[in-house]
Amino acid sequence: MIGSLIKSTLIAGATLAIASPAFAQEVPEHGIFILNSLLFLVGGFLVMFMACGFCMLEAGLVRAKNTTTQLTKNIALFSIAAIGYYLVGYNLMYPLGDWAIEGYFSALFPALAVMEPVGVAAEAADDIAYASTASDYFFQLMFCAATASIVSGTVAERIKLWPFLIFTFVLTALIYPLQASWKWGGGFLDELGFLDFAGSTVVHSVGGWAALAGALVLGPRLGKYVQGRVIPMPGANLPLATLGTFILWLGWFGFNGGSQLAMGTIGDVADVSRIFANTNAAAAGGALTALVLTQILYKKIDLTMVLNGALAGLVSITAEPLTPTLGAATLIGGIGGVIVVFAVPLLDKLKIDDVVGAIPVHLIAGIWGTLAVVITNSDATIGAQITGIVVVGLFTFIVSFIGWTILNLIMGIRVSEEEELVGLDNSELGMDSYPEFTRVSK
Amino acid sequence: MIGSLIKSTLIAGATLAIASPAFAQEVPEHGIFILNSLLFLVGGFLVMFMACGFCMLEAGLVRAKNTTTQLTKNIALFSIAAIGYYLVGYNLMYPLGDWAIEGYFSALFPALAVMEPVGVAAEAADDIAYASTASDYFFQLMFCAATASIVSGTVAERIKLWPFLIFTFVLTALIYPLQASWKWGGGFLDELGFLDFAGSTVVHSVGGWAALAGALVLGPRLGKYVQGRVIPMPGANLPLATLGTFILWLGWFGFNGGSQLAMGTIGDVADVSRIFANTNAAAAGGALTALVLTQILYKKIDLTMVLNGALAGLVSITAEPLTPTLGAATLIGGIGGVIVVFAVPLLDKLKIDDVVGAIPVHLIAGIWGTLAVVITNSDATIGAQITGIVVVGLFTFIVSFIGWTILNLIMGIRVSEEEELVGLDNSELGMDSYPEFTRVSK
Amino acid sequence: MIGSLIKSTLIAGATLAIASPAFAQEVPEHGIFILNSLLFLVGGFLVMFMACGFCMLEAGLVRAKNTTTQLTKNIALFSIAAIGYYLVGYNLMYPLGDWAIEGYFSALFPALAVMEPVGVAAEAADDIAYASTASDYFFQLMFCAATASIVSGTVAERIKLWPFLIFTFVLTALIYPLQASWKWGGGFLDELGFLDFAGSTVVHSVGGWAALAGALVLGPRLGKYVQGRVIPMPGANLPLATLGTFILWLGWFGFNGGSQLAMGTIGDVADVSRIFANTNAAAAGGALTALVLTQILYKKIDLTMVLNGALAGLVSITAEPLTPTLGAATLIGGIGGVIVVFAVPLLDKLKIDDVVGAIPVHLIAGIWGTLAVVITNSDATIGAQITGIVVVGLFTFIVSFIGWTILNLIMGIRVSEEEELVGLDNSELGMDSYPEFTRVSK
Repeated sequence: MIGSLIKSTLIAGATLAIASPAFAQEVPEHGIFILNSLLFLVGGFLVMFMACGFCMLEAGLVRAKNTTTQLTKNIALFSIAAIGYYLVGYNLMYPLGDWAIEGYFSALFPALAVMEPVGVAAEAADDIAYASTASDYFFQLMFCAATASIVSGTVAERIKLWPFLIFTFVLTALIYPLQASWKWGGGFLDELGFLDFAGSTVVHSVGGWAALAGALVLGPRLGKYVQGRVIPMPGANLPLATLGTFILWLGWFGFNGGSQLAMGTIGDVADVSRIFANTNAAAAGGALTALVLTQILYKKIDLTMVLNGALAGLVSITAEPLTPTLGAATLIGGIGGVIVVFAVPLLDKLKIDDVVGAIPVHLIAGIWGTLAVVITNSDATIGAQITGIVVVGLFTFIVSFIGWTILNLIMGIRVSEEEELVGLDNSELGMDSYPEFTRVSK
Repeated sequence: MIGSLIKSTLIAGATLAIASPAFAQEVPEHGIFILNSLLFLVGGFLVMFMACGFCMLEAGLVRAKNTTTQLTKNIALFSIAAIGYYLVGYNLMYPLGDWAIEGYFSALFPALAVMEPVGVAAEAADDIAYASTASDYFFQLMFCAATASIVSGTVAERIKLWPFLIFTFVLTALIYPLQASWKWGGGFLDELGFLDFAGSTVVHSVGGWAALAGALVLGPRLGKYVQGRVIPMPGANLPLATLGTFILWLGWFGFNGGSQLAMGTIGDVADVSRIFANTNAAAAGGALTALVLTQILYKKIDLTMVLNGALAGLVSITAEPLTPTLGAATLIGGIGGVIVVFAVPLLDKLKIDDVVGAIPVHLIAGIWGTLAVVITNSDATIGAQITGIVVVGLFTFIVSFIGWTILNLIMGIRVSEEEELVGLDNSELGMDSYPEFTRVSK
Repeated sequence: MIGSLIKSTLIAGATLAIASPAFAQEVPEHGIFILNSLLFLVGGFLVMFMACGFCMLEAGLVRAKNTTTQLTKNIALFSIAAIGYYLVGYNLMYPLGDWAIEGYFSALFPALAVMEPVGVAAEAADDIAYASTASDYFFQLMFCAATASIVSGTVAERIKLWPFLIFTFVLTALIYPLQASWKWGGGFLDELGFLDFAGSTVVHSVGGWAALAGALVLGPRLGKYVQGRVIPMPGANLPLATLGTFILWLGWFGFNGGSQLAMGTIGDVADVSRIFANTNAAAAGGALTALVLTQILYKKIDLTMVLNGALAGLVSITAEPLTPTLGAATLIGGIGGVIVVFAVPLLDKLKIDDVVGAIPVHLIAGIWGTLAVVITNSDATIGAQITGIVVVGLFTFIVSFIGWTILNLIMGIRVSEEEELVGLDNSELGMDSYPEFTRVSK
């Protein structure tokens, strides 16, 4: 009996020995929290840098006389997003389980405090199985800011600074968070089965719809469409535009990879890795189809199309960067590049003046990417995808159109003809981006 | 008795079973070491990239005729910092428990080897509860280099290259590490209760004081102050300056976040996350107050003020990025932006010629940020904060002033009038930054 | 006996208590997998950003009339690398244990799927002791792309776009992976004891050899070598070139640090940290020797030499960034800077026209770095190092030379004289990088 006791003790020990290696292989719960938070921080600073990417891309694609204004708009919009999302947006986006309008208002006031206390203890962490609240906030804020960055390129070279900044506040405090809550806040689109992994619709097409509304209310630049012809207005600094594209490409690893929302298990980190590889493949695919197509169609490669092709490839894979194979990701991105090559002249035919090509890249490729989810992810249904695209699109476009129209009635959103011809840097800011370099008269 | 033995065995097992999940949730000791080291590596490469940010900011804000020189100074100072901090600085800064002067000298010679052996075993790691020595060294080096980067902007467009490089060596090998040891090396300012989380004083105002001393010894640029008027000398390339600002903003997440010095527990990673969010909020606050104020005061937004406002916001939150709420961080940063708008013309009134605005941004906002610690951190006392500001300021300013003066006596620190008018790129380097772009005669 | 039973039980418990903290200190197996994968992801995005660095460096160092073409080549080559390495390269490089030619072909077809399934379980992970397959793929792809980036700078300003892009496909799909398999795929150079930690030979000199072959087949730019004189053709935008250098410097932390391939133990993370510190020291050393040498030799510091000096320092430390002390790393990098200063004019004397200095930086400093391994790593033999250099060099140079020659015969790789004089942006693309800035006639 003593013997059996010893034996049973040994067995208990053995059981422990067998069980504990298996158990001990996994990352402890605190480690998962730390690794998830770290994913948000690294992903977040990469997405933050996209604000710089957008700024450089747009500053390179506008003419020199409007460059300082474009730079100012970009750093200002990023700052306004930080305020708007903090004061209103974050709380509007997340506490809501459904679409009830009273939910929004009740959510507005209690909750400016979005961060856990300093040195939070494990028991007091808001969600020990997820990540630190501030890391989540930081990451989500950057998505909101990216949405605003998309708009500034389309409406460049003719919009007044202050109406643009006011619209940015509305977009980042209300429009973006509201519609984002429908999917990422666990709202009705999420319940419907709408899938949008990192935001082809929720971020990119929302930015695109708001930009389209702005372009329609503003009208095209003076001299852009003359007697049925489209007058080219080439960007002043293509190295800047290329720099911006590379920075956006870099930031997109954080954008899509961070949207896995976890990397504390083998499955999660392997998924984040797949997403990185697929995101890169899609960008390459988009750049190359735009390169080949412009060679075929125009006999000369068009660098701005290649840049936008890469970005369209990135937008296209954003709704589902996880399930495709590398080959599928390359093709999905590649179709994004095709979209850019055909949509840019199409918009011009419609006399919708999109200075940097943000509507083809973010709106149209965003729709394509959202639809393409059904190709590789069997959980997606074409009905839910279309519903998401349409609901988010209608809401964003209508509210944005109303917003731009109200701003236009109240203060006018467009500079005068004379100011536009002289350039916004002179009229709006009185500061030249390249004061020493003489210019080709134009 | 046998029964009780079984029971006690089972209880022991049960105790183990209860205790071990609780224990097993935490990250194992080696994991903490790894995560802390990783924080230093990621934080370190972000701060390293700030050298690029400073370089682009300054290259954009000087005139085209001095751009190559400014680029050269920035890449050279970063390289010199790597040598100076390695040969002298790191050992001067860290081994010291107190201020004893003999400590400094004894520390100088034994210890060029700052790294643990290849494939260090856990038992042999210098401090298993902290992080790898080389990761700490890498991170700390980048702070030292940042201090030097601050100086180069202020003294631009008139200083000779070699005296500047020699001063950089003195600053990174001696001045910075010495005063940093008083706080971060566990010296007397630390014992006094002086709080400076990531270096509003230890890094930023030190750079600012050294720059101020240089500006005073150098005097203003030719033609800057004429008959009581301040002649604007606009920067040649504002997209570069904006790029630099965004890169600095990005790097600051590493600067402040890495200064938590740990992320191996839930409390630490949540704190790093708070710091990221607060750092971003302060930058946004600084940019926006500068934007609004320049609109009100000058009727036109001033982009360079907005850029410097963002940077001043970042400097302001650097002394305490952890304890503020997001709202408080936004306000603390916002006051930084206000400081810039008022301090830039004030310096001009005093005929202190600071080419890029580094003194308002790093020195004055650095003082403000150090004082602001008392608002949100109850451990801080206004007495200790002022003591730290004054002691570090007096030491740095006096030693720097003496240094610049000696260099001026020995070799002259300023180029000739003719060379200044033609531009330093011609006289110092014989290489033009933009050789093909024709210039507005000026 | 009961007493002894209790005792033995307690001893067993005590043993467990002693053993398990020791065991529990280490990172669990899944944690190692996650941390290793994370190292590849962070290292990978840093190396990806090097593509941007190369692009900016080259765009800054060519003349304005060829800038758009240079930008296009860089974004296109990075995209082509993603396709070539995916379709052929990765599978060619890794499954092979030896040099058997049939191995290559059998490896080509089964294996386009390089990623583990979504949500892979621990048991199903390809190598639980290593890292996720997609993270490894992502990291390795970036090395392949870096090799291609090296080539584009040397052959700039005279090569046709399409032959260059076709060569890039051959390089990234075949040449790079084939020779890389000899070392990193566990092939015969690895078995021979050839050491090349992060690729001074496998990446940098391979890019350099391919570039040299291209330069020889192409011949120098028109007007570069006239009557025994070397005509300077200064780059159009030195801030861009400096930006590119800083970005490359940043990316190199991922390049060398990630090549540790692991950070899940104390020894590994401490090694990664050493590598970061050494990499920075070598870059600083290279920049400073080039700075001092150009001052001594030419009486003026040459910024482009300083930039290339930093890069040569980085290449020099790449073959062995781990074993040197900080001082040794600084010196190894410093010799890289010396190489640049002497090799650039030497190539000109040989009338080998290397537009950006890639051959001195990547090929010659790459050879130096590979030889320098024997200085600090006692596992290295000079025989194996020379064998590796010669075998890889002969293979790459010969195959590249044949490739360039075939392309030249089939389609011509060089633009016409008239096109070259007008600039490639006009003839190849019809798009100007700086359309508004007037130019100095040249």
